[in-house]
Amino acid sequence: MDEIAIGIIGFGTIGSGVVHILKENRAILEARTGFGIKLKRIADLDIESDRGVVFDKSILTRDAYDVLRDPEISVVIELMGGYEPARTFIIEALRNGKSVVTANKALLAEHGLEIFDIAAENSADIAFEAAVAGGIPILRSFREGLIANKFDKILAILNGTCNFILSEMTENPGAAFKEVLKNAQELGYAEADPTLDIEGMDSAHKLALVLALTHGIHASVKTIHVEGITQIEPFDLVMAREFSYKIKLLALIIRHGERVEVRLHPTMLPESHPLAQVDGVFNGIYLRGDMVGEQLFYGRGAGREPTASAVIGDVIELIRSKRIGTSGRVPPLGYSGSLMSDDSVMDMNEVVTNYYIRIQAADRPGVLSRIAGIMADHNISIHSVVQKRRDHSGAGAVPVVFITHSAREADLQSARQEIGNLDVVDAPPTIIRIEDEDLD
Amino acid sequence: MDEIAIGIIGFGTIGSGVVHILKENRAILEARTGFGIKLKRIADLDIESDRGVVFDKSILTRDAYDVLRDPEISVVIELMGGYEPARTFIIEALRNGKSVVTANKALLAEHGLEIFDIAAENSADIAFEAAVAGGIPILRSFREGLIANKFDKILAILNGTCNFILSEMTENPGAAFKEVLKNAQELGYAEADPTLDIEGMDSAHKLALVLALTHGIHASVKTIHVEGITQIEPFDLVMAREFSYKIKLLALIIRHGERVEVRLHPTMLPESHPLAQVDGVFNGIYLRGDMVGEQLFYGRGAGREPTASAVIGDVIELIRSKRIGTSGRVPPLGYSGSLMSDDSVMDMNEVVTNYYIRIQAADRPGVLSRIAGIMADHNISIHSVVQKRRDHSGAGAVPVVFITHSAREADLQSARQEIGNLDVVDAPPTIIRIEDEDLD
Repeated sequence: MDEIAIGIIGFGTIGSGVVHILKENRAILEARTGFGIKLKRIADLDIESDRGVVFDKSILTRDAYDVLRDPEISVVIELMGGYEPARTFIIEALRNGKSVVTANKALLAEHGLEIFDIAAENSADIAFEAAVAGGIPILRSFREGLIANKFDKILAILNGTCNFILSEMTENPGAAFKEVLKNAQELGYAEADPTLDIEGMDSAHKLALVLALTHGIHASVKTIHVEGITQIEPFDLVMAREFSYKIKLLALIIRHGERVEVRLHPTMLPESHPLAQVDGVFNGIYLRGDMVGEQLFYGRGAGREPTASAVIGDVIELIRSKRIGTSGRVPPLGYSGSLMSDDSVMDMNEVVTNYYIRIQAADRPGVLSRIAGIMADHNISIHSVVQKRRDHSGAGAVPVVFITHSAREADLQSARQEIGNLDVVDAPPTIIRIEDEDLD
Repeated sequence: MDEIAIGIIGFGTIGSGVVHILKENRAILEARTGFGIKLKRIADLDIESDRGVVFDKSILTRDAYDVLRDPEISVVIELMGGYEPARTFIIEALRNGKSVVTANKALLAEHGLEIFDIAAENSADIAFEAAVAGGIPILRSFREGLIANKFDKILAILNGTCNFILSEMTENPGAAFKEVLKNAQELGYAEADPTLDIEGMDSAHKLALVLALTHGIHASVKTIHVEGITQIEPFDLVMAREFSYKIKLLALIIRHGERVEVRLHPTMLPESHPLAQVDGVFNGIYLRGDMVGEQLFYGRGAGREPTASAVIGDVIELIRSKRIGTSGRVPPLGYSGSLMSDDSVMDMNEVVTNYYIRIQAADRPGVLSRIAGIMADHNISIHSVVQKRRDHSGAGAVPVVFITHSAREADLQSARQEIGNLDVVDAPPTIIRIEDEDLD
């Protein structure tokens, strides 16, 4: 049986998962593909630590160029993450005619066009299923199985850390964000520095890749409206439940003809929505195609084996493509033809949606009427309002919650600022957008 | 832009959906693929009826060989269904070097090996995503994205008609099977002759295809244990709810080392299971891979556009493959290498699972003890028992329901027969298997 040589750069969690699967499922991979995969080289600065997998240590090297310049290696797996030197290494691999598999969402979201051009020039392929939603084959589904569809709506939970934290806060009313984060760190579900996850940037990079694949739009994450989950308070989760909503950190792509909303923020979703069932560290992608209608993909979005499973799916695709001499002939969808132009993304101020607004206001006569007055001045029509005195509060600030009818983001932000400036209000109101098609 | 000619044989619902999508989403398809698709010929015995789509009527023909022998046509879409003449037409197309897209699950389940061999001999491809779960790209996911996995468990709702009927019976306690079926027929969710759907054969054909793709096992549906939903009574749905279960017609593939359970029958599933949320005409596939862990795919399993969307995804894959000269080089997974042998399917009698048993017994002293005695004689240990007198029944037969601990199917069937023979019991007990990992 033919053996195809591959190499890995960056030997962390996912890399050790790749080694594990190649060993554990060798027989099944050979039966399904008709060829063997030989892991020839692994490059990492640390070649000493035990990764908990059994393999021939002599393939380890500290020099990435031992992988990049090995003429026998036909597919390079980049798993270092970060912009540099990952970008330089990937480009070197492509220039040497090697195909590349990567899970590097940040790099592709920012430098994807450059890298795909270089791949095409060198008749090499680049695949990155593992960059979005771990083991769920969602990019492939967009590129192939669902290719006949325009996507009216894509809503996605793309970060397991945030979803775990929000799920825990939902299940344990009163649990504060910081406690739950600490618990997630202890369980290994959150990094020591969780900033990229909880501030939403990890999800935003993935959102940018999905947007490119499905709509052909290349948007820097700097231009996307991104909010993380750090402002969510236990009280919001209690209120969400009262309105039969769940709070999820959602990536949203909503098409209106030739314009498209693209945003990433905590979102209240009806409990009956398929995505509302996606709890804990799981990821979920809900889509509505003009031809297929509604679909949901659900699975583990991170972790050693699930992500490595996606990497190996890509490796096999690229090996097949190289063996039959078609590398570089099928560019990643959305990077090829023109679908929608990059400037079809709507300004966040133009977005029209429903809002949950929490205001910490003094418990005095007339306060509610002043707040409601400001909303009316800004064309914000109120669907419901709830004011609850906390058991322990004899006086002082109490939270008032409004659910709005459809309103423009620009109006909402103006009203938010004006309300925040009231002397009877403690701070600018907290806003959580609502994705509920039954609300007008 | 290059135009690739294709032809359709069988111009029913899905065929008209293909025409619709090719017209409606022409621009997006061209942008994503870089080529145009020209529908050159449509063959059907009926070339008169209005299909509700606009196209050049001159491409219609009554003669399938106008499609099969047209040298310009490179991909033939077979949408007639049934064994013959579909089999003959597909073989003719492959022998003429054309690639074939089909949604014909019955034909492939029974004659797949023959047809795939002929495709390979003629360097032609055959694709059939539309044959299973409509617009959900599940076969492609098994073949590609999830290729690095052994599948420990696959549970799937593959028939929208049955799922609609069971969902309606769940939502409307007391609604009898026949009434709900009639309603489904009026809504267009069930055929005039619903036998293939409600007796489970449609699902069984799909199960056989999934089994071949995931495990490399070729099992005729004649050898698979298949039960439909016609025996389910409103009372069973009421009881299911009481035990926090839902009843679904499930295809099950459960691997135990080198042996595998393959069965298709109504199944009680915990309400918290991801598949339990898949209601109405929707399909769902739940899988547990040894590397990716749990995944769920959810979407429309039938209907004009969803199924046509899958057909077009396949057409594009096969056109790409033909254009780059690789047709026939990547055989359908599971039909290539040896994964598990065909005889690794366990005999149904060996299956060990939990059971719901409903017995219509006379309301007399000693009856319960006689039934329980028979169960004990057959090593069936009882987890719970419920006996409820119906409001209106002053006397006569009352249903008794047992939930068992794990038991062997052979033992269960012996006990069922013995209990059915008791003079105090009206008929052989109704059995519904339970898929609940929390039950021992």
